[in-house]
Amino acid sequence: MASSEGNKLWGGRFVGNADPILEKFNASISYDQRLWEVDIKGSKAYVKALQKAGLVTQNEMEQILTGLDKVFDEWSKGEFKIKPGDEDIHTANERRLKEFIGDPAGKLHTGRSRNDQVATDARLWLRDAITTLKELALQLISTMVERAAVEIEILCPGYTHMQRAQPIRWSHWILSHAAALSRDVERLEDIRKRVNVMPLGSGAIAGNPFNIDRELLRQAQISINMMETEFLFWGSMCLTHLSKMAEDLILYSTKEFSFITLTDAYSTGSSLMPQKKNADSLELIRSKAGRVFGRCAGFLMTLKGLPSTYNKDLQEDKEAMFDTYDTVHAVLQVATGVISTLKVNQPAMEGALSPDMLATDLAYYLVRKGMPFREAHSCAGKAVYIAESKNIHLSKLTVEDLQTVSPLFDKDVSSVWDYTKSVEQYSAPGGTARSSVTAQIEHFRTWLQHCSVD
Amino acid sequence: MASSEGNKLWGGRFVGNADPILEKFNASISYDQRLWEVDIKGSKAYVKALQKAGLVTQNEMEQILTGLDKVFDEWSKGEFKIKPGDEDIHTANERRLKEFIGDPAGKLHTGRSRNDQVATDARLWLRDAITTLKELALQLISTMVERAAVEIEILCPGYTHMQRAQPIRWSHWILSHAAALSRDVERLEDIRKRVNVMPLGSGAIAGNPFNIDRELLRQAQISINMMETEFLFWGSMCLTHLSKMAEDLILYSTKEFSFITLTDAYSTGSSLMPQKKNADSLELIRSKAGRVFGRCAGFLMTLKGLPSTYNKDLQEDKEAMFDTYDTVHAVLQVATGVISTLKVNQPAMEGALSPDMLATDLAYYLVRKGMPFREAHSCAGKAVYIAESKNIHLSKLTVEDLQTVSPLFDKDVSSVWDYTKSVEQYSAPGGTARSSVTAQIEHFRTWLQHCSVD
Amino acid sequence: MASSEGNKLWGGRFVGNADPILEKFNASISYDQRLWEVDIKGSKAYVKALQKAGLVTQNEMEQILTGLDKVFDEWSKGEFKIKPGDEDIHTANERRLKEFIGDPAGKLHTGRSRNDQVATDARLWLRDAITTLKELALQLISTMVERAAVEIEILCPGYTHMQRAQPIRWSHWILSHAAALSRDVERLEDIRKRVNVMPLGSGAIAGNPFNIDRELLRQAQISINMMETEFLFWGSMCLTHLSKMAEDLILYSTKEFSFITLTDAYSTGSSLMPQKKNADSLELIRSKAGRVFGRCAGFLMTLKGLPSTYNKDLQEDKEAMFDTYDTVHAVLQVATGVISTLKVNQPAMEGALSPDMLATDLAYYLVRKGMPFREAHSCAGKAVYIAESKNIHLSKLTVEDLQTVSPLFDKDVSSVWDYTKSVEQYSAPGGTARSSVTAQIEHFRTWLQHCSVD
Amino acid sequence: MASSEGNKLWGGRFVGNADPILEKFNASISYDQRLWEVDIKGSKAYVKALQKAGLVTQNEMEQILTGLDKVFDEWSKGEFKIKPGDEDIHTANERRLKEFIGDPAGKLHTGRSRNDQVATDARLWLRDAITTLKELALQLISTMVERAAVEIEILCPGYTHMQRAQPIRWSHWILSHAAALSRDVERLEDIRKRVNVMPLGSGAIAGNPFNIDRELLRQAQISINMMETEFLFWGSMCLTHLSKMAEDLILYSTKEFSFITLTDAYSTGSSLMPQKKNADSLELIRSKAGRVFGRCAGFLMTLKGLPSTYNKDLQEDKEAMFDTYDTVHAVLQVATGVISTLKVNQPAMEGALSPDMLATDLAYYLVRKGMPFREAHSCAGKAVYIAESKNIHLSKLTVEDLQTVSPLFDKDVSSVWDYTKSVEQYSAPGGTARSSVTAQIEHFRTWLQHCSVD
Repeated sequence: MASSEGNKLWGGRFVGNADPILEKFNASISYDQRLWEVDIKGSKAYVKALQKAGLVTQNEMEQILTGLDKVFDEWSKGEFKIKPGDEDIHTANERRLKEFIGDPAGKLHTGRSRNDQVATDARLWLRDAITTLKELALQLISTMVERAAVEIEILCPGYTHMQRAQPIRWSHWILSHAAALSRDVERLEDIRKRVNVMPLGSGAIAGNPFNIDRELLRQAQISINMMETEFLFWGSMCLTHLSKMAEDLILYSTKEFSFITLTDAYSTGSSLMPQKKNADSLELIRSKAGRVFGRCAGFLMTLKGLPSTYNKDLQEDKEAMFDTYDTVHAVLQVATGVISTLKVNQPAMEGALSPDMLATDLAYYLVRKGMPFREAHSCAGKAVYIAESKNIHLSKLTVEDLQTVSPLFDKDVSSVWDYTKSVEQYSAPGGTARSSVTAQIEHFRTWLQHCSVD
Repeated sequence: MASSEGNKLWGGRFVGNADPILEKFNASISYDQRLWEVDIKGSKAYVKALQKAGLVTQNEMEQILTGLDKVFDEWSKGEFKIKPGDEDIHTANERRLKEFIGDPAGKLHTGRSRNDQVATDARLWLRDAITTLKELALQLISTMVERAAVEIEILCPGYTHMQRAQPIRWSHWILSHAAALSRDVERLEDIRKRVNVMPLGSGAIAGNPFNIDRELLRQAQISINMMETEFLFWGSMCLTHLSKMAEDLILYSTKEFSFITLTDAYSTGSSLMPQKKNADSLELIRSKAGRVFGRCAGFLMTLKGLPSTYNKDLQEDKEAMFDTYDTVHAVLQVATGVISTLKVNQPAMEGALSPDMLATDLAYYLVRKGMPFREAHSCAGKAVYIAESKNIHLSKLTVEDLQTVSPLFDKDVSSVWDYTKSVEQYSAPGGTARSSVTAQIEHFRTWLQHCSVD
Repeated sequence: MASSEGNKLWGGRFVGNADPILEKFNASISYDQRLWEVDIKGSKAYVKALQKAGLVTQNEMEQILTGLDKVFDEWSKGEFKIKPGDEDIHTANERRLKEFIGDPAGKLHTGRSRNDQVATDARLWLRDAITTLKELALQLISTMVERAAVEIEILCPGYTHMQRAQPIRWSHWILSHAAALSRDVERLEDIRKRVNVMPLGSGAIAGNPFNIDRELLRQAQISINMMETEFLFWGSMCLTHLSKMAEDLILYSTKEFSFITLTDAYSTGSSLMPQKKNADSLELIRSKAGRVFGRCAGFLMTLKGLPSTYNKDLQEDKEAMFDTYDTVHAVLQVATGVISTLKVNQPAMEGALSPDMLATDLAYYLVRKGMPFREAHSCAGKAVYIAESKNIHLSKLTVEDLQTVSPLFDKDVSSVWDYTKSVEQYSAPGGTARSSVTAQIEHFRTWLQHCSVD
Repeated sequence: MASSEGNKLWGGRFVGNADPILEKFNASISYDQRLWEVDIKGSKAYVKALQKAGLVTQNEMEQILTGLDKVFDEWSKGEFKIKPGDEDIHTANERRLKEFIGDPAGKLHTGRSRNDQVATDARLWLRDAITTLKELALQLISTMVERAAVEIEILCPGYTHMQRAQPIRWSHWILSHAAALSRDVERLEDIRKRVNVMPLGSGAIAGNPFNIDRELLRQAQISINMMETEFLFWGSMCLTHLSKMAEDLILYSTKEFSFITLTDAYSTGSSLMPQKKNADSLELIRSKAGRVFGRCAGFLMTLKGLPSTYNKDLQEDKEAMFDTYDTVHAVLQVATGVISTLKVNQPAMEGALSPDMLATDLAYYLVRKGMPFREAHSCAGKAVYIAESKNIHLSKLTVEDLQTVSPLFDKDVSSVWDYTKSVEQYSAPGGTARSSVTAQIEHFRTWLQHCSVD
């Protein structure tokens, strides 16, 4: 215990021993070691600032930089050995630096508390994390857009309330999810903007410690927690979107719908029932919204009612952030894999279209003949009811049948019963017409190009 | 039942009766009536689009506009009477319009579903809500900044872990919360940006219904839900910030701290204990983060795993949105009241400063004499320990006492024991020095001016 | 203001005015008035205790009781008028009592703080609420059980991962949800147990105020909040169960499944698409788990980190509790309505059974012939694969086909292809055999009888 | 890949390859290996059932049992080697068993799916977990009770709204938290009750697989998830209680309160400020309510709206359950350590008592002289106001001063100003009188004894 005691940063004062359970509880090295790279990067920047401020000599700075490079090497080779007293990555790196270069290591932390260091590391890490997730999200969107382009001719039912509503293009379904994701990318950009800007416009990591902006760093601590929280919530929203897409696809892959088939790479069998092929990949995607939201909810609850500045409670941030990152990272890739490999069953999709899905078009037929929409809607409803009573398709009603509902019906009503014509009506931006879908695809392609060079 | 039946929009088809409990459950008029104004506004825009598209005549449009103005009048005078069949604000307004102008009312909804209308109304409402909350937040920040300007001379302990850490300016504490809020205003701007932009860059509410962008509206439905969710989370973050500020102030208003006194307008007594004066206003502020977060958590859970497009589940959005708005609206105003009226007990604040809070400065003293920081920190720690053992203030240690810790200590150590000098050291941006605090105040004033004209 | 001022319980001390926004924020009368009945009930018990303790005379007690009866009358006739100063139901009732009987009203609250009164009222209210919800839950379970009894002959696919797994009885599906609900009833009983027991075994509401157990009441305050929280979570669990049942039924009511049809009373049409019939009732049920969980999450977050005893933050409890109660109350009734009226489409259910769902039985066939299960599972899998390759039903494979997989296959394999025989295999408790389902039904009937007399 | 392919339980059918990211995502071995012991225990029970049902021979059973013991040995010695294809603990154990005993291993899983096995393992694990946590909770309660017994003479302020309210015994504060925890123990018992009972009263793990109760196991799957959820929520409630206790103690350990001092074992220093001693242990306790609640929220959100029976989403349960267990496990121990070692500063506690805290007693003085309580409360309020205006202690008001408020005041009012006398008034159960506190201590001691033998 004595040696680990001597290792602690507040070692000068304490006379008692620590509770080993608390020590373990307190220690974050098991998870924050993944900050090793940004921690070293941050320290290298800091020592340069110290040298400029005259707090370390040119020579000391060089020793420290060289030492930090050695520590870096050990980590990248997987050779860094964590020792009992290394309670967090910052202590571990400093301890190792001291072993390499001795006393000058003690100068690295002049005017910088561990909280400052943690906040800086988290900011650097989060910046990289956002960049990576953005790239993965763009890859998924791109996959969707290109698939939509190729399969633009396929029609399928559009659903509301899980009931067949109106015919749409399958590409239209794909693009609606691409649109949701593209807004998530924009939200991620908003967070990155805040992560990149130091509070109150200052770009410096630190100044002269006798003119030191520790207070600035203290504020950074506060703001990093809120950025982390934003990031956790971003993950929750993004995965909630994907949970909805997954739900649709799980439905579409049921025997009853049979619209799509997952490749074997994205489904698994049952250990009991040999015939089963389960959409496990999609179920996992669907499940993760809960997981990530739990991290967000937990951390926000931890933050609630805390006094301002640093409190140990804030140590909860890292695991939440890492887990959210890892989860979103995996989900985006699995989703890309699913979307790029699933097989569409075009006959099943188009076979699911039925004339009653054109009842709105039937109402529009009457509107075109001058009837107010509400009345036309009511007439079309009556026509549906008659067809149901006769147990025939809506399109099989005779003109005479229809005329019992409204005298405006005439022979030309037969032109209504064409699914392609129906989807082609919606030619406004965002519509189901070929031209609208093509325009959306082009829009996304341009947007993707713009985002990627960003 | 027959008459309410006839009133329903899907009246043409249903033959059975509805469950009255479900009807009540289903109805949203009790809360969505507050959308009355944006609903009429949206319908007025829509009918103009219909006229341009040739779907209503000039005359019909004028009748509808006049009728809508009458409906508007009734609402603004508090004379609108909700009838049994009015299940939501949209149905209610349309029903009343029909009573005023008859048949042409039935044309207003050509090519527009209720979901489209709901989404449009929600978007318009949210835009106004964001504007109002931004103004209230700016008012609070402005109150903070001006108070900080006036009380810049007052020193108080800065706390970390609720333990006295280092002397700071009271203004510095105020501004740290203003900074958190200013970032919340920026986040609100990010949401407003999305609320203002129609999906995929189209600004139209609707086109020609035979060339109708219902699909666009369908997407609007999706995106409005995510904006609502963002807004709910924004409320959660903003109130979490304020919960922390409230917690600090509740602490400061305890007998034990006695740093501040709330005016009677912001505290209440006890029905049992005559001597008590409770900081109820601050406790209410602190409590509301939970409430609003609950709304966010609830709605996100409702969204999770839903199939895409509209499902009745989405009806949960409005109450969450309204309650969040109302709560944040009240909290911001109460917080402004508290901040502008609380009395600061300067002697208590300054009396709480003690020499041990300058131990970091003692370490810096040694750093200035060339000792590495870690060693200096350890030496200062030993000095604290000696003072505690002797049961005297750190500043009362003699030079001889200090020299047992390090020979670098000398007479000039006495210069360390000056609180004002200590805060003046931190003159970097965001620091506690007078100049830094003043610069921050100026920064905020400029920012506020910029925000307000926005 | 003067008069409302005079009305306040801490009126003796305050000299300033209150912020009207805070007053509104602070006031709970708009929602806690629904405690009027339990509040009067509690006060009647309390005054009797005061009389026994000699703190009010027999005469004063009688005046107070008579006065309280008058207040009760006003409320039950809907004639009670809330006045501006009535910030909560307790103040309102006391104010009205004073108007009726004058000075003795001031004695009712000897030794009782408003928090004590709030806690007692909440406890009494919660006890009644639990009783009512239990009854509604039992009614739903009973409806399920009786429906299961009647429709025991209907077979349908059992699903895992939303993929057809094995044939089951439709009754078996119903009972699995009844079982989940029955455990929720048990959980509700656990909470009621705690609500009924006063802390530490004391049954008294209050003793002699000079020997007064205010401390007991103070503890009651703490424990009532935890019971409320338990109740909120109970609502979340119960509605999560029902969200799963609703999800199943929404699926079953899609065109693609077509297993069930909701009556018109439990579905609604579309304002745009005349042919649509949406399962709104089920979607509402599914949505409410989120709502109620949000209440639970919000209140728990409010509780987190509060100092012990009463803090104004706790005022958040009531709305959460009322909303949870109202929501679960409505959901249970709507669910009962849905379950009792939906129509089962037996041909569709049984038409959805297919021979591949008997692949597990095919494996068991081999197990019966001595093959280890893992190997048998693998062989059955190969048979499925061959059938799929040949694009024929599994049952159409010839014995020769099967023998390429395993020589153990023989003519008697034909006995496998019988769905009823398949479900009859599972005759253990909880199984799908007629006898097992009947046993479960009997079990539930007994349990329901036992619960109801409870 | 080929070999890992062959290893998979659905190996017979799949022809494609799996996505390695999905494989990792899908695999649970990294965390569910901690089920190794219960998994083997469950399999041993299962094979015995199979033998009784005639599905394995006596000899096969013995081979399997011996093989399982070997697997057990490897795990307990830390020698078990996880191989690439071991996607979960069940697959791993079965794979190893097969390596030990060959073909008979394939018979172990006759009629049992992995989901059945997972549910059984989880149930067994949860039962043990509950037992352990209960013991730790009892240990904490016991520590509290014994400390309360020893320090019964110490008085301190009781707070409401963080304002000094009335004098109480320090023991009374301790016991209020013990009471909250004792109710948590009761709640844990309620869950254990459900974990111990198999659904519908059956105690068997499995029957004859041709008369197999797989359906029972399928129900077990459902109910285990709800028990897990209950457990997660239980953890949230228990830690919310402890967050409140921690908040109190953090307050009490501020310089401003100075009521308690943590031993060095439960506090840490600052890496920057040598004089600081932070109550990190208490802050960690306070923080964990959020973490565990996040797990509960996340899992409930994952459950919401899932179709019934098994879906891969349910895989989220384990990590939530393990993390909750580990966290509560550590928190209870750290809390026990803190409570048993903290030092009470009696002079500071008693020094914080002031005469205005006896204002309620002053009101009671008047009540005893016949004044209605509301009036007495108002008079006492006026006395407080006069004392404040004169800037003297309430007890320093002369009888003449008091008589300006009410003529009922007389010389004997001096008897009011005695803190011990004040706390002794509350002698009902749960009160602050010595006798009441002692009775509570005895109550807890009996209860603890009763619980421990349970």
